[in-house]
Amino acid sequence: MKVSIIGTTGYGGVELLRILKQHPKFKIQSIHSTKGETPITEEYPHFYHLMDINLQKIDPEYIADQSDIVFLATPSGVSGKLVSEFINKNIKVIDLSGDLRLPARKYKEWYKHESVHESISEKAVYGLSEWNKEEIKDSMLIANPGCYPTASLLSLAPVTKAGLIDPFSIVIDAKSGVSGAGKSLSRNTSFAEANENLRVYKVNEHQHIPEIEQQLLQWNKDIGPVTFTTHLLPITRGMMTTSYVQLKEDHSTGQLIELYKEVYNQHPFIRIRPENTFPSVKEVAGSNYCDIGLHADCRTGRLTIIAVIDNLMKGAAGQAVQNANIMCNFEETMGLDFVPIYP
Amino acid sequence: MKVSIIGTTGYGGVELLRILKQHPKFKIQSIHSTKGETPITEEYPHFYHLMDINLQKIDPEYIADQSDIVFLATPSGVSGKLVSEFINKNIKVIDLSGDLRLPARKYKEWYKHESVHESISEKAVYGLSEWNKEEIKDSMLIANPGCYPTASLLSLAPVTKAGLIDPFSIVIDAKSGVSGAGKSLSRNTSFAEANENLRVYKVNEHQHIPEIEQQLLQWNKDIGPVTFTTHLLPITRGMMTTSYVQLKEDHSTGQLIELYKEVYNQHPFIRIRPENTFPSVKEVAGSNYCDIGLHADCRTGRLTIIAVIDNLMKGAAGQAVQNANIMCNFEETMGLDFVPIYP
Amino acid sequence: MKVSIIGTTGYGGVELLRILKQHPKFKIQSIHSTKGETPITEEYPHFYHLMDINLQKIDPEYIADQSDIVFLATPSGVSGKLVSEFINKNIKVIDLSGDLRLPARKYKEWYKHESVHESISEKAVYGLSEWNKEEIKDSMLIANPGCYPTASLLSLAPVTKAGLIDPFSIVIDAKSGVSGAGKSLSRNTSFAEANENLRVYKVNEHQHIPEIEQQLLQWNKDIGPVTFTTHLLPITRGMMTTSYVQLKEDHSTGQLIELYKEVYNQHPFIRIRPENTFPSVKEVAGSNYCDIGLHADCRTGRLTIIAVIDNLMKGAAGQAVQNANIMCNFEETMGLDFVPIYP
Amino acid sequence: MKVSIIGTTGYGGVELLRILKQHPKFKIQSIHSTKGETPITEEYPHFYHLMDINLQKIDPEYIADQSDIVFLATPSGVSGKLVSEFINKNIKVIDLSGDLRLPARKYKEWYKHESVHESISEKAVYGLSEWNKEEIKDSMLIANPGCYPTASLLSLAPVTKAGLIDPFSIVIDAKSGVSGAGKSLSRNTSFAEANENLRVYKVNEHQHIPEIEQQLLQWNKDIGPVTFTTHLLPITRGMMTTSYVQLKEDHSTGQLIELYKEVYNQHPFIRIRPENTFPSVKEVAGSNYCDIGLHADCRTGRLTIIAVIDNLMKGAAGQAVQNANIMCNFEETMGLDFVPIYP
Repeated sequence: MKVSIIGTTGYGGVELLRILKQHPKFKIQSIHSTKGETPITEEYPHFYHLMDINLQKIDPEYIADQSDIVFLATPSGVSGKLVSEFINKNIKVIDLSGDLRLPARKYKEWYKHESVHESISEKAVYGLSEWNKEEIKDSMLIANPGCYPTASLLSLAPVTKAGLIDPFSIVIDAKSGVSGAGKSLSRNTSFAEANENLRVYKVNEHQHIPEIEQQLLQWNKDIGPVTFTTHLLPITRGMMTTSYVQLKEDHSTGQLIELYKEVYNQHPFIRIRPENTFPSVKEVAGSNYCDIGLHADCRTGRLTIIAVIDNLMKGAAGQAVQNANIMCNFEETMGLDFVPIYP
Repeated sequence: MKVSIIGTTGYGGVELLRILKQHPKFKIQSIHSTKGETPITEEYPHFYHLMDINLQKIDPEYIADQSDIVFLATPSGVSGKLVSEFINKNIKVIDLSGDLRLPARKYKEWYKHESVHESISEKAVYGLSEWNKEEIKDSMLIANPGCYPTASLLSLAPVTKAGLIDPFSIVIDAKSGVSGAGKSLSRNTSFAEANENLRVYKVNEHQHIPEIEQQLLQWNKDIGPVTFTTHLLPITRGMMTTSYVQLKEDHSTGQLIELYKEVYNQHPFIRIRPENTFPSVKEVAGSNYCDIGLHADCRTGRLTIIAVIDNLMKGAAGQAVQNANIMCNFEETMGLDFVPIYP
Repeated sequence: MKVSIIGTTGYGGVELLRILKQHPKFKIQSIHSTKGETPITEEYPHFYHLMDINLQKIDPEYIADQSDIVFLATPSGVSGKLVSEFINKNIKVIDLSGDLRLPARKYKEWYKHESVHESISEKAVYGLSEWNKEEIKDSMLIANPGCYPTASLLSLAPVTKAGLIDPFSIVIDAKSGVSGAGKSLSRNTSFAEANENLRVYKVNEHQHIPEIEQQLLQWNKDIGPVTFTTHLLPITRGMMTTSYVQLKEDHSTGQLIELYKEVYNQHPFIRIRPENTFPSVKEVAGSNYCDIGLHADCRTGRLTIIAVIDNLMKGAAGQAVQNANIMCNFEETMGLDFVPIYP
Repeated sequence: MKVSIIGTTGYGGVELLRILKQHPKFKIQSIHSTKGETPITEEYPHFYHLMDINLQKIDPEYIADQSDIVFLATPSGVSGKLVSEFINKNIKVIDLSGDLRLPARKYKEWYKHESVHESISEKAVYGLSEWNKEEIKDSMLIANPGCYPTASLLSLAPVTKAGLIDPFSIVIDAKSGVSGAGKSLSRNTSFAEANENLRVYKVNEHQHIPEIEQQLLQWNKDIGPVTFTTHLLPITRGMMTTSYVQLKEDHSTGQLIELYKEVYNQHPFIRIRPENTFPSVKEVAGSNYCDIGLHADCRTGRLTIIAVIDNLMKGAAGQAVQNANIMCNFEETMGLDFVPIYP
């Protein structure tokens, strides 16, 4: 399968390159960027000897002629125009931006700018691989989930679907490494100010909130709005969500771990941790795993769910390739069997 | 006033040295450690030219003869024996360990070892400076608060006292820098494993939980148990607590900020941030400030409270000196007017 | 003494604020920036309650009327125009930029743009406090040294002056924290790319090279060109220079330490470490110290000199205030007695 | 080929696991540690689902019966006894410790304890893969190089062999991430003291010095002693050596880059950077590359050589597997084609 990447020089794009370079079935056909013609090694010297090819300008027609699958790792607001070009020509598209994840009205409310045309976003399948596998398989257009929603939804799915929780009790305290903010420069993501620091941002206003709520509602129509806080960690890669829910009835930690193990039994990238142990961010670095730990507190009747992912892998490029595998009827894990880098 | 420090070589002790060295009224009389006789510069070369004195062994009688105030920066389980020696001789004692903060039964339940004799812990005043100032003033023995309780309690006090919140809704998501774990070596606090990582620990089991609940109950007898999670941040200094509470009735963020400003109006170390802005950990580094930001979410009726402190300052040595100032009828801020180090 | 700062919002400017705020004799009269009228707390919220004053636009005439001393913490290329305004009115000026440190020809060769008019730079005294104290005392205009030159020159002065080294053998391997690059944004100083990294830059081409060589030549006219490499450390503050020189004759480490101790005996900010110990960057953090360690290798006849400073203190704002103290006949250490923050 | 690892729970051992798990020809037969029987996931939870096998105690006879190749990732002082067991049974051994790299006299002088019996160390081939490939191919026992020597020697080899440098002019300024110090706990490698710091250690006394000199002398018998300084970087992985040599005659940077490119032309893991660009540590993270940049300074006649490696890969486990590939007549790069993780 010939794949092309648009928006290659962002961190999502460059992580796609790392994965696809080592993928047994996908062949990188061409890479594109608004930078136009330059060797990728000029932007990313770590590719010397590995990827001695040039970036090309974004010419959708040319790309369509060359590719079986196109990954869009473009900033918010760009995908709309590109997508229609490709779906008309029956080319599979996986969009890593947030542009196709919400209906138009919701999008505008939270992203504060116009959405793509509803005729496009309606065609997109939400690519939460573990939960929408059948729809992904039959789709030509994937709205690849955001990093925060991926960790949050994988954490909350089993208890939400099983109806075990007070539907208005969800609090998600999320922490992300700086690469999640992308490569564009800002004072908050400069080293001197992000290092030896922890910063909170977009409290209750993050554009990933409606994406989380929309999926939760599909699982359980009673779910109310969620409280969601995002923190900027002084690390490059990695994300943790600490989710809190009120249990309707008493359940021991052990029982809930059993539930999660059953639910995720057939899903190789989800690892449920044994009782009294919890995952750390570094334990999934560079890999496509989402590790989950649980603790039900009998004092408060509240369940604490800790999930960690590599925001550039399971939170972006890794899940995108997982979805591409599913769309192509390949093994879901193909080319994604990276062992976490530790320490 | 002549002050002595016992347990000088831990991070709490060495931060006391930094403060007291520059304090206009307190004179460091002697410094003590189980290490016995060694120059402090051997353990901490950053004191060259500044503190060319020796550590001494811990001889309570000798210390009592020399000192007006004694700071105990000793590990858990040590203070009990030392305290009685000093209070009998009318020497002011400020204990930075957790040993005097809880009644015996609670202590044993959460610390998993024997407490000091109740006759001692009963004499201790809980040294949350902003809230217990009058009792501190009249006390000879202070149980200096833990770092997590300090940030949590300063965050929750105004709404708890005012009865604005559902008393069973409190969730505290706390994050601490590594120095909070002290100087003793462990794999989790080694650089190779703490760096580029975020680790959760003691979920719902941290020994600071009863300390928080006990004080909340004094402010509002209806408060239920709290959900409390601690995370180890890859930073040396600094702590953030993100607290979540359900509001009984609708209040705007602006109204709540006004409430907090009024409550903390006379308290120079508490800084309430303007609406739509939130404090970062680095913005209090090296200082005794506790900065607080608020956001009330009309969608969920939940209030999010962000507080940051330097865990070694307001979370330990800084508050200890603040309490010593209060006990001596000095200006509360004396010797504590450090400008945060930024960046 | 009334002092004003121009270029307040850079990291050098904000460090001047931290120092001057706590200085017993200097009073911050006004602070200026190209940003014009905004509260300093908008740019730097860590100043809440401490500095509730506004930035003002840069109006040299107004500033001159108000101030006894002006600190210029402006980017390269700006000082020239401002300086003449002030020196004509007999106002003391301390310029933290590199603009006044070199004669015009050298400046243009290394900075790659035009220098200030030679009539101005000729008036400036090079403010290496420990070595040019007498000239600084009598001067109205100080070219405050760069961070790299400060550490390098303090390291090399004793052996260079004493003629103990092969004059063509000097190699300086320098490492700086990211704040040294200033607040302007760049990919290399973004967190995601500077963290967990070490980057070399401007190999043999750094504009601080002629500044170092010029001063070395004043101490010893035989000194040849130096080899100088700069590395970007994944830390915010701090700098280390590891300097290598060939000794003309055998000297033991102990003998050389004695020499350094004698030379720096009267200089409170220079701390020579005992044999077999070496300073770390963190051991001077937040302070104005320059700590030096030495090792003479009998196998190679080469001397290794390690020096550490806080690049924003002794490498910039700290030395600037030290020079202001000297110019005003105050105690050199006034307002600069910060204990290093450790850990 | 069945491989076993002894000393699995150190950072070298765990990196071997990461590589070997993904190697197409080597099968991990058994893993051993002084810890005895425990699941590897207890020590390293990032292996959940990937390596659900147990550590076993170190029983050389049992290991010998099971294995074609044994990797020793044991601490200094242990290999000697183990090696004889294996070489007698014709099992290939790759020793990652320093025990077999030096003749007995040199070893004792620098390591300060007894060496293995000379009859053993004499049998070992120094496994600098790029330079000793032929001997490695025919050997049963490899002394795998240290991390510092690998970067230093790959940097210096071309100019040393070509006789282009003053043989007494070599200065190596080396910087290593904390994982290089291993998993054993120490104050210097604790997070609170290593973070936001740079520390120098073992100045001119590091045990890797004789290993470097011995190999340089094999390339050029005139080479004198080297000056060698080691710094502890606040990063987990990665190493940079900045080497300085005096050129006998003038050579342009371009000419020297050509020389290096020719020399390393057939060596896939060595990447010579184009003129005016230099490698950063992060650009080889997680990979087996050694990237080299050069700058010849016409002012001083000195050549600066910058080399970066991942200390756990090319500096330890990666080169060990590269050597195992060579010993087995496999493609040198087999199982080692990791793309660097960036950012």
